[in-house]
Amino acid sequence: MDRIEVIKFGGSSLASVEHMRRASRIVLERRRSCGRVVVVVSAMGSRTNELLDLAYAAAAHPDERELDVIASSGEVVSAALFATLLRHQGQPARSVTAHRSGIATSAEHGNARIEDIDCGHLNSLLDDGVVPVVAGFQGLGPDGEVTTIGRGGSDTTAAALGHALRAAECLIYTDVPGIFTTDPRICPQARVLARVHYEEILELAALGARVIHPRAVEFAGKNRLLLRVLSTAEPERPGTVITFAKEDSMDQPAVTGIAYNVEEAKITLREVPDKPGIAASLFAGVAAKGIDVDMIVQNTAADKQADISFTVHRSQLRKALAAAEEIGAELKAKAVEATEGIAKISLVGAGMRGHAGIASRMFQTLAEAKVNILMISTSEIKVSVIIDLDKAELAVRKLHKAFGLDAEAEDGVIAPARAKA
Amino acid sequence: MDRIEVIKFGGSSLASVEHMRRASRIVLERRRSCGRVVVVVSAMGSRTNELLDLAYAAAAHPDERELDVIASSGEVVSAALFATLLRHQGQPARSVTAHRSGIATSAEHGNARIEDIDCGHLNSLLDDGVVPVVAGFQGLGPDGEVTTIGRGGSDTTAAALGHALRAAECLIYTDVPGIFTTDPRICPQARVLARVHYEEILELAALGARVIHPRAVEFAGKNRLLLRVLSTAEPERPGTVITFAKEDSMDQPAVTGIAYNVEEAKITLREVPDKPGIAASLFAGVAAKGIDVDMIVQNTAADKQADISFTVHRSQLRKALAAAEEIGAELKAKAVEATEGIAKISLVGAGMRGHAGIASRMFQTLAEAKVNILMISTSEIKVSVIIDLDKAELAVRKLHKAFGLDAEAEDGVIAPARAKA
Repeated sequence: MDRIEVIKFGGSSLASVEHMRRASRIVLERRRSCGRVVVVVSAMGSRTNELLDLAYAAAAHPDERELDVIASSGEVVSAALFATLLRHQGQPARSVTAHRSGIATSAEHGNARIEDIDCGHLNSLLDDGVVPVVAGFQGLGPDGEVTTIGRGGSDTTAAALGHALRAAECLIYTDVPGIFTTDPRICPQARVLARVHYEEILELAALGARVIHPRAVEFAGKNRLLLRVLSTAEPERPGTVITFAKEDSMDQPAVTGIAYNVEEAKITLREVPDKPGIAASLFAGVAAKGIDVDMIVQNTAADKQADISFTVHRSQLRKALAAAEEIGAELKAKAVEATEGIAKISLVGAGMRGHAGIASRMFQTLAEAKVNILMISTSEIKVSVIIDLDKAELAVRKLHKAFGLDAEAEDGVIAPARAKA
Repeated sequence: MDRIEVIKFGGSSLASVEHMRRASRIVLERRRSCGRVVVVVSAMGSRTNELLDLAYAAAAHPDERELDVIASSGEVVSAALFATLLRHQGQPARSVTAHRSGIATSAEHGNARIEDIDCGHLNSLLDDGVVPVVAGFQGLGPDGEVTTIGRGGSDTTAAALGHALRAAECLIYTDVPGIFTTDPRICPQARVLARVHYEEILELAALGARVIHPRAVEFAGKNRLLLRVLSTAEPERPGTVITFAKEDSMDQPAVTGIAYNVEEAKITLREVPDKPGIAASLFAGVAAKGIDVDMIVQNTAADKQADISFTVHRSQLRKALAAAEEIGAELKAKAVEATEGIAKISLVGAGMRGHAGIASRMFQTLAEAKVNILMISTSEIKVSVIIDLDKAELAVRKLHKAFGLDAEAEDGVIAPARAKA
């Protein structure tokens, strides 16, 4: 049986018909070197946001079902245009929307889960030598109505189709040449990783989420599907393979990349009388207001007083602070403080598991650069610190060098230092 | 059983969310005064053209099937936004696209015929007190793929649904207050007709086609469905009823309205040796090049030489002239001439059948106004003349007055003299 590839293009690779034409040439090329290809497309450029703007102009709280009808139309147009471009170049192709793709989802409009994929229609197109161009981000709910599977959902569509079709690889074409060791805008020495473990990508979220959606990565990792992130503008570059293979991690350096997030703010409850359940009360209360918490750190002082800090997205700071003050009063916290102007820097590496001393080397490097650490949190494959925003870029560059991530001459994949559009 | 109304809004009534909100208030009002309403919507403003522009940027000859996927998406978004607006105002509503509307069409993508309508889903929504908002212009072909039913197709969707649902009336909301006796931009005395026979509207094509698609009128006439043209901006005005009832025509004036078309050009073959089949050769040759011919006039001179003139749309003049020259040479025509800068003026009236002398009164009126007539053509309910373009507006005003069409004080529905946006 022929090798199957699923090839996904994001909105920035499809911003105009001209962009789409370039993307379609990649598909023709892949089709020549690989027997069967299935294309998955996002909506053109910012079309999804334009459509959502229309919906929210119609009603502050649009019906989720109608919202899905509106939002999914962007991918429908993309798919039909893309199929038109392929046909125009002599390649039989056909757009496949939610009603024919066989993607069955749960009923939760706006955030549906893919529950089953019937590949019958897609396989019959492939058997006929036709390239199916699947409208991403959408499926059919149990009642036969169109659903969408959440933002960034075309990546998930691609991964789910890759699994269902037993694809050899799922190629995610984006506007970057792969996954970088850190943000090349702030660290000119950043380079493209040839391979990255899917768990690392999940931890590198802030870095990776702009490139590929964590949900797709998680799905691919669990289902042992190879993903590859490539550049639509420079398709000749090898990109980054996102692998699920544990054995690979033995050879790789302890630190794979450095994530960088300046979108967070910190809230601290000082001197909370320490008794069982205080963290539970606090975060249950915060979650009840619909606030997502990222890092949580709790220290217990000698006199049975705990300091609890947590970070939230900046846009939720005001709401989070109100919740924290309310609960802080109940818990008899001495003070509740909010801090903006912070950055989260994370070292990520699956190889970190076997290496002691990564954290201490990180703290040492930051100390030498006179960077003060406000919060620390560690997981199996990540060490994160919160520092002042104005030291963030310096810290990334120092750490990038200290952990041997800087691009070397023989590497051949020096990252461009230019800022992304 | 409750009265059912089908209410259709065109693109100019849906140009923005704000336009849609006004339109949705009309639906709420109709719903209060009429038990059951089904809404049919076009795409927003010029969205269909924008979508087609994208398709033609992708390929000079896009695949018809993909073109239908692209073009139909405009109505899908409209329907979901409209349903959102109704729901936001407390009216249960649901968008219904090709996959659920029950509209089965022929397989001819881009110009499919509606072959059958299964009203099951629509009736179950109506039974539940829900207003179905049907995406116009689309259906499902025999292979389960989306088709479109040609430009202006939402009118046809509305008429076909009106018939299938046994609606009492089909309301077509537009950006004009009804069907005028003639173009109010060139004849300030033009007024809105309270009633017009469907055959008249078909003959008034140039006037009526901007308001309602002839295909929908023909369908409604044949199926004895009442249509009413109304203004979205001034819904309190009574509009124009398009009736199928023959008996009405007895009482009405001989001339109902004056159509006016400046989009045509004329080609004349001079002194063609007259023998059987010359017209057949000529127009078969012209049709083979995909050129639509409107008026055809042939005169035979005493010496067995015929002059044949015909009109085509201006945009097709060059192609038509090339065809006429080629065939003219074969037929040994003495000369082939093209004339631009012409206008077609038509008197239309179902009552014309019983009245002699309409044509001669028309020619007399034009002679008094010193308007030279280049071509004449008559049908059962129409007399058309081709005249010089620069006399066209004068001719319309003189004829409008001569045939008693000018608005009178007691009429109460004086047309606004302002130009349409």
